[in-house]
Amino acid sequence: MPKIVDHERRRAEIVQTTWRMIARHGLDRATLREVAAEAGYANGAIKPYFPAKSDLLEATFRHVFSRTNDRGAAATQGLDGFDALRAFCLEVLPLDADRLDEARVVIAFWQLALHDPAQAEVNDSAMLQWRSSIRGWLDAARGADDDGDGGRAPVQTLAETLLTFLLGAQVAAVFDPDFNSPDQLVAQLDGQLDLLRR
Amino acid sequence: MPKIVDHERRRAEIVQTTWRMIARHGLDRATLREVAAEAGYANGAIKPYFPAKSDLLEATFRHVFSRTNDRGAAATQGLDGFDALRAFCLEVLPLDADRLDEARVVIAFWQLALHDPAQAEVNDSAMLQWRSSIRGWLDAARGADDDGDGGRAPVQTLAETLLTFLLGAQVAAVFDPDFNSPDQLVAQLDGQLDLLRR
Repeated sequence: MPKIVDHERRRAEIVQTTWRMIARHGLDRATLREVAAEAGYANGAIKPYFPAKSDLLEATFRHVFSRTNDRGAAATQGLDGFDALRAFCLEVLPLDADRLDEARVVIAFWQLALHDPAQAEVNDSAMLQWRSSIRGWLDAARGADDDGDGGRAPVQTLAETLLTFLLGAQVAAVFDPDFNSPDQLVAQLDGQLDLLRR
Repeated sequence: MPKIVDHERRRAEIVQTTWRMIARHGLDRATLREVAAEAGYANGAIKPYFPAKSDLLEATFRHVFSRTNDRGAAATQGLDGFDALRAFCLEVLPLDADRLDEARVVIAFWQLALHDPAQAEVNDSAMLQWRSSIRGWLDAARGADDDGDGGRAPVQTLAETLLTFLLGAQVAAVFDPDFNSPDQLVAQLDGQLDLLRR
């Protein structure tokens, strides 16, 4: 068994290789053997880190959410309310090649999560975290600008609507890029934020 | 080779069996052998209808869109503008067990479409059709109620935003049903339609 520091670094390298392979070639290509070959490791060198393909896939799914969440944390630092909300959404939207790769990997994992409780749990916990952040920012925005209008939609509905939009944008950008360029996605987002501001 | 009428009926039966199997057990279970067993056919009885698994999957993906489109056509008959738009969206949203099954199958097919041009083409042509209908209804709504306000968002942006929402709703309803009950999805939809009405 390798030293702990090397162990963590190697695990990270393997996961990096895996998510790029899935983005480019799909889930079926990401076997332990193919990942080892792509990462330049000997065949069998993955097993000490990820005994089964399912372990590797779960770590890879977590990694993709971590990438998004790390960007979101950096972008929203020092912000609150609508400013934080918009900054976070701009990191979730697939606005560049890297994030389109993330979207491809997430679409692949959704299919796994339909019938694999471990993958579904990774998705659930990421969605709970996003939901909690979005609600917090919406509450802050409403508190700072509360005009006492009881007719406004509940924060819960608004938060779910925004989540639904962010999930759909992953699909729309990957399959219909001609209608969902970065500018067009940002215009769609700003429409959604208008809806929340009212 | 069976007679043409029987041939068409058998094809339809096989596709019906396949989409339900994919909804319940996932893509990996939908082999020609498993589908034959589930449909009560002899092993090898699928081949005259669908020579390869990819042919069966493509026909199944088309079938799921046809189900939605047939419901949409029935629901929008005699309607135009916002009424048609809302009626169509209510047929696309996964508001019951059958449509949640459709959503599961569509999520599975998206993963295939990432790396399979034939499946991607099925998706593209369905999305072009939805886009064209949505734009037509939006144009009609705007024409009937045109206040000459040049500040409104272009129909194209509004149509894509609604498509993005409808795609995201497939994912949200399947993975987060506690936050996306039928009532909650309809409330989200009505928020989206408010956005289009302004």
